[in-house]
Amino acid sequence: MTVYDIIDAKKRGNALSEAQIRFFVREVASDRASDAQIAAFCMATLLRGMTDEECFILTDAMAKSGELCRRPSAEGVFADKHSTGGVSDSTTLVLVPVLASLGVKCAKYSGRGLGHTGGTLDKLESFAGFNVSLSAQQFERQVRLVGAAIAGQTEHTVPADKRMYAVRDVTATVDSIPLIASSVMSKKLASFADVILLDVKYGDGAFMREAEDAAALARLMVSIGRAAGRDTCAAVTCMDQPLGDNIGCNAEVREAIEVLKGKQNDLATLSLYHCKKLAARALKISETEAERRAQESIRSGAALAKLGEIVRAQGGDDAALQDENVLPLAKNCRTVRAKGAGFLHISALALGRACVELGGGRKREGDRIDHTVAIILKKRAGDAVKTGDTLAEIYYNGASEDAFALADGAFRCSGEYAPKPLVYQFIGEEPKNV
Amino acid sequence: MTVYDIIDAKKRGNALSEAQIRFFVREVASDRASDAQIAAFCMATLLRGMTDEECFILTDAMAKSGELCRRPSAEGVFADKHSTGGVSDSTTLVLVPVLASLGVKCAKYSGRGLGHTGGTLDKLESFAGFNVSLSAQQFERQVRLVGAAIAGQTEHTVPADKRMYAVRDVTATVDSIPLIASSVMSKKLASFADVILLDVKYGDGAFMREAEDAAALARLMVSIGRAAGRDTCAAVTCMDQPLGDNIGCNAEVREAIEVLKGKQNDLATLSLYHCKKLAARALKISETEAERRAQESIRSGAALAKLGEIVRAQGGDDAALQDENVLPLAKNCRTVRAKGAGFLHISALALGRACVELGGGRKREGDRIDHTVAIILKKRAGDAVKTGDTLAEIYYNGASEDAFALADGAFRCSGEYAPKPLVYQFIGEEPKNV
Repeated sequence: MTVYDIIDAKKRGNALSEAQIRFFVREVASDRASDAQIAAFCMATLLRGMTDEECFILTDAMAKSGELCRRPSAEGVFADKHSTGGVSDSTTLVLVPVLASLGVKCAKYSGRGLGHTGGTLDKLESFAGFNVSLSAQQFERQVRLVGAAIAGQTEHTVPADKRMYAVRDVTATVDSIPLIASSVMSKKLASFADVILLDVKYGDGAFMREAEDAAALARLMVSIGRAAGRDTCAAVTCMDQPLGDNIGCNAEVREAIEVLKGKQNDLATLSLYHCKKLAARALKISETEAERRAQESIRSGAALAKLGEIVRAQGGDDAALQDENVLPLAKNCRTVRAKGAGFLHISALALGRACVELGGGRKREGDRIDHTVAIILKKRAGDAVKTGDTLAEIYYNGASEDAFALADGAFRCSGEYAPKPLVYQFIGEEPKNV
Repeated sequence: MTVYDIIDAKKRGNALSEAQIRFFVREVASDRASDAQIAAFCMATLLRGMTDEECFILTDAMAKSGELCRRPSAEGVFADKHSTGGVSDSTTLVLVPVLASLGVKCAKYSGRGLGHTGGTLDKLESFAGFNVSLSAQQFERQVRLVGAAIAGQTEHTVPADKRMYAVRDVTATVDSIPLIASSVMSKKLASFADVILLDVKYGDGAFMREAEDAAALARLMVSIGRAAGRDTCAAVTCMDQPLGDNIGCNAEVREAIEVLKGKQNDLATLSLYHCKKLAARALKISETEAERRAQESIRSGAALAKLGEIVRAQGGDDAALQDENVLPLAKNCRTVRAKGAGFLHISALALGRACVELGGGRKREGDRIDHTVAIILKKRAGDAVKTGDTLAEIYYNGASEDAFALADGAFRCSGEYAPKPLVYQFIGEEPKNV
């Protein structure tokens, strides 16, 4: 068996055998397959497709290509939420403290932002001193003591996925449903969550533009998770406009804290939706009861207190929980005003890119981020606006005409607006043993 | 414009613009495009295809990606023949001296063998001392004095093709008609031949199994050559069984010499066919007249004498032209006998691979070759044989059961045999100004 023959078979549209897939993943993880061979395999897979069976085996092989994450010895059910990436999506910062306050364990591995999408680890580093590089021992101890921890996955987990993703990123082979599914789910299977919610975004700011493509990806990932024995469900959610009102690390952390203090907006709505779905399955209660408990956790301040516990446990300064000015915004402010009248349309992609251009996000892995850069929406999509209305404020340190042009272009008025539901579809079984 | 966007466009099945193709080739030649990006581009091209227009631009850009070969200042018309690769195909060794003896200039760049196919440069090195690495000055001087030279193309020509071919070779992206056509023709366009004959093989021992696929490749290459202003034609020829009776460097050189001394077999027939086509076009005479002159060149010994001149001019010992034992065969001999009765079928691929296994060919670029290894056919496909008849002799130094098994498996008897014509199709205009 050779990598060449496996690429050749996929190129011809054949379904690969389990032995072929596991061999290929071993060759990738051990660096015996070259980047060129990985690229050819990914392009052939993108254009020829994979059966669900092939995709499950690929995912399982990738998950097992490196070290598995050690399950902390804490009691209880572990829950995890994964988003396919969006703009102003800080649901993790809301959801983890709420769930932990309800007794659902959250031992969460998160990522960094890249391109127009933000990353949870970058946002957490807005808390001065916050350490996202926990050792396995530190991670386990914190989960036992606090009920939640959020850190980066180590270099030794899913090495096959790391190589494949790095190749896909530069070869236009990201947008393949089986390759996305296996990449996301390999990281989940290498970890130990019992209950998994996948937030699959569709629309302007998502990889998948069309809701039905996102739903197909969601169904495939749910089937992979279930085949691996995990209680997996997915929500297909809209990413046409930014989920929250704030874009940029400090601003998004401020907004997550506001939501934990009771602010109502789309970010709050979706975070609570996710909490309801996960808590019901983890605690084996009805969704109605789960939602009630989550709302009560916010009302009582328990969730906010839990966020403080997590931040302190990971070495961070939680003063921002009391005073948002601890997390400053950049010194210069530019106002974006409506150039016409009508119903407002907002492009999440353009605003995410504008934030990157201003230094608030990353063009390339390893780039430094300016946490104070912010774009704060003053209107939401569908709002009726008139010429000159303030649509957004841009906080920046170094001016960038490219960024301003992107931000201006993100807003458009027209005579009609067809609202889309925040949650397009939920894929999953009812919570068990309620 | 980025390489990423160009890969993405081809992946989506779009035709690329001239600017996109030329940009991509520049990025390849300058090493700014990675191997992974080249692989993704090639796989997308293989699966999505290219228009003839795209393929011509790709070829032209590749030809111009490095140094162009300098046209020797010798008078006359330059002819070139290119084969897509076969087993026991030594037509170049016959055709170059015949054409040169008729006054057609042959300034030929050839390649080395790889896999089951042999290479002209390796065969020429069977002449002790033969130098295939001529400087541009040496090459030009010899063409002026002798009328012919055969050497390797320098490292500085078609660098884009060299990188792309190295990637295609390990990523199962060789068998794409536009990629084969652009690779072959870029080397022709970087050179200066006025009249070009492409020998496109089909069948068991060729890249293209089906005659119609080979014909499609041939038509595309002819259209590229003509678009570039070269008088280009192609013959689609059968490579089901080895072309000559001998496989292996010394043995093939022996056979080419025998053909130049008048031996009649398929190698002689095809070599004369090519000479007729090329001489008619180069000398502006009828094909009948061209064929007569070629036959006369062999009958008179002029062609054989010309081979001697070429060998000596390139520093080689031409004693083998008088005594074939100067080119020894390996010391051990194994006879392959018919295991049944009926009409014989012979696999060129299996025999080519057997020769490689015995060390007579290359598995990887840079491998050393044993020039004395030989497989000599005693019967041809379609011959009626009976059990125990001698089918072939294998000359070897180190025994290899794998090789013997391959060679045994290359022969098969059955109750029927449908002969295929040696030349399936000729693609080209009539010779001009006859």
